[in-house]
Amino acid sequence: MLSVNVNRFLSTFHSLTNIGWTEEGVMRLALNEYDVKVREELIKILSSIGSIISVDDAGNIRGSIRGKSDDYILIGSHMDSVPYGGKYDGFYGVMAGLEILRSIKDLNVTTNYTISLIDFTNEEGARFQPSLLGSGLTTGVFEREYVYSRRDKDNITFEKALIDSGFMGDKNNRLVYNKPEYYLELHIEQGPILEEEGYQIGIPLGIVGLTVYEFTFKGQSSQAGPTPMNRRRDALVGASKFVTRIRDFARNEEDLRATVGILNVKPNIYNAIPREVKLTLDVRSPNKNKIEIAINKAIEISKEIAEEENLEIKYTHLWTAQQVNFDEDVIKTIEKACKELNMRYKFMYSWAGHDAQYMTRISKVGMIFIPSHLGISHAKEEYSSDEDMVNGLRVLQKTIELLDGGI
Amino acid sequence: MLSVNVNRFLSTFHSLTNIGWTEEGVMRLALNEYDVKVREELIKILSSIGSIISVDDAGNIRGSIRGKSDDYILIGSHMDSVPYGGKYDGFYGVMAGLEILRSIKDLNVTTNYTISLIDFTNEEGARFQPSLLGSGLTTGVFEREYVYSRRDKDNITFEKALIDSGFMGDKNNRLVYNKPEYYLELHIEQGPILEEEGYQIGIPLGIVGLTVYEFTFKGQSSQAGPTPMNRRRDALVGASKFVTRIRDFARNEEDLRATVGILNVKPNIYNAIPREVKLTLDVRSPNKNKIEIAINKAIEISKEIAEEENLEIKYTHLWTAQQVNFDEDVIKTIEKACKELNMRYKFMYSWAGHDAQYMTRISKVGMIFIPSHLGISHAKEEYSSDEDMVNGLRVLQKTIELLDGGI
Repeated sequence: MLSVNVNRFLSTFHSLTNIGWTEEGVMRLALNEYDVKVREELIKILSSIGSIISVDDAGNIRGSIRGKSDDYILIGSHMDSVPYGGKYDGFYGVMAGLEILRSIKDLNVTTNYTISLIDFTNEEGARFQPSLLGSGLTTGVFEREYVYSRRDKDNITFEKALIDSGFMGDKNNRLVYNKPEYYLELHIEQGPILEEEGYQIGIPLGIVGLTVYEFTFKGQSSQAGPTPMNRRRDALVGASKFVTRIRDFARNEEDLRATVGILNVKPNIYNAIPREVKLTLDVRSPNKNKIEIAINKAIEISKEIAEEENLEIKYTHLWTAQQVNFDEDVIKTIEKACKELNMRYKFMYSWAGHDAQYMTRISKVGMIFIPSHLGISHAKEEYSSDEDMVNGLRVLQKTIELLDGGI
Repeated sequence: MLSVNVNRFLSTFHSLTNIGWTEEGVMRLALNEYDVKVREELIKILSSIGSIISVDDAGNIRGSIRGKSDDYILIGSHMDSVPYGGKYDGFYGVMAGLEILRSIKDLNVTTNYTISLIDFTNEEGARFQPSLLGSGLTTGVFEREYVYSRRDKDNITFEKALIDSGFMGDKNNRLVYNKPEYYLELHIEQGPILEEEGYQIGIPLGIVGLTVYEFTFKGQSSQAGPTPMNRRRDALVGASKFVTRIRDFARNEEDLRATVGILNVKPNIYNAIPREVKLTLDVRSPNKNKIEIAINKAIEISKEIAEEENLEIKYTHLWTAQQVNFDEDVIKTIEKACKELNMRYKFMYSWAGHDAQYMTRISKVGMIFIPSHLGISHAKEEYSSDEDMVNGLRVLQKTIELLDGGI
């Protein structure tokens, strides 16, 4: 039986996730100086326990402790953050996997399966859009050309950032060429449900579908003073109506989330009527029809507003992630682990995307959630207690023991 | 009698205002490369006609043709633009003044008054806020320390930009130490009234008052998926309600304009609920009470929204420009000029700020407006016909003759 070292896990987690921490939150954007620093720290620790380390051509870092078989169980998540992000999102899963590898080394047994850990590049999609670029390339969802041509806001390509980071690896190390038997991802819930309802562990049945659109409202700029109120074609008034109407619509629906996250105004000076506003609409639901209905509703609303405010409207589909369901056997194994450890657990859906999503293409996948205080995530206030983190780590450990069958 | 050279005026105007022109509009922001280029061109022409040229410590450029007296009539405006601006705003007034100086030179008479032209720095307030920095310093409204410490969006101070431009002049050249008898500013209306009502010339009685506030809505960022719609504290939803409510309020009032021109979202990524939105509200009216009432209403609305959406709200007074009234004698002289030239003219207010505003502190001031097609300004579509520009130039010429009494 594995025995995780709780103090080692917690001290490694807290010291390393401080890399990139600022007063406004974590700024460890994919492949930036902070991300590179934690990657180097991860590799140091993986080396110190004799892991076999490989890096693929998306910069995904994998460390493995050999078992009796080359078949392997993969534990993964990501260490990049959104701007002004939290300390737990992604980072927790990688640190938990690292502790699992360390505890196998401590025990000095040979597992049936090879046990691997992976840190995926650019999970967040904050520096390079879309999200899940690393897992997308390594699982064969994205073409290399597409991934490499993504640009950040300073117009730097993913390819250049990857080369400059020193983490350009070998195409042959892609997971799709050597698929894991199982993939496990331990993560914070990023929502308020587990805490509010008093559960210690969430077992996601899958990840809800997600569609993102861009809407552009075009009006006519003019000096703020001389144009009478009733002659204006103010793109920001149109966009503002859209933000509130779509929120009001989504609030009255079950199982639907709709968020305007990006909104940019042109020319954005105090004394000019805005001539153009571009915004993104992110729509999620475990019910595929609901997403379609909501997008159609959003388009209808935008057209009504264009009519009311004498604006032009354009909309573009940016991307869709289809709903995925996790492996039933893995879900049952996680449930069994919870029962053996006397954890209060709840089946639920993940409303956020995770690398687990693309891993379902090539592996049997399960996820484990722990409570997020107040449900806050992607913000400096993101918090999960050490106790909850250790609970999750123990469930991960037990699940691996059950899947491996030899520890 | 002066005789302006219409072809010279129009060809100088059209060729020089193309400096800084892009497909999206004019990018001749204060003291940037394009502004510096037109300043150099202006100085070339002023030198070629033997003007006395002086530059003050705000970078305002003045060129003078000596009359019998050192007392002088000043014609002025500005050559800087907003980003994505029009070709006429400000530039027209400087080019018209330049043609007046050239026509005096042509005639080879000595006027009673010295006739001067001034190009004011950073009228727009687009690069450095607030607006009217050049006229503010030279008329004694602003302290030098305040003006010099203003920063653009790249954190460059006005002082550094001024030094780098090569247009740092002498404090002793400030207008406040040598006040003009009269100040005249010829400008496009920037509104639709003259064109719609069929007038050739507008005679502003003054400039309406203006107050600008900044409002900040603070909520809680979180991942866009996992937070249920009814638990959100979305700062952008709050800001959007504000934009539409304040517009609806202003639309139902007489003699009031209210514009949200700047709106910035944090963190501004597609999959995070916005945690903070900062916006500016620009309120104008010829009735001072109306401005106060509107600002109080805006604060009340923001508090209601903060309550409804569980947000925090902060508001800050950025600046106020009091209403100014122009000199009655100058207004009558402009009217007389219009009558002598058989121009259809209308008395009106200027809803936009102009350097004329601060010039009322040290001089007898009048303005002359010409029609703006569709009322569009601060945009690439800004347009006034050559015919209307020449009409304005002729009224300016005639007004100067009447004020001078010796041409």
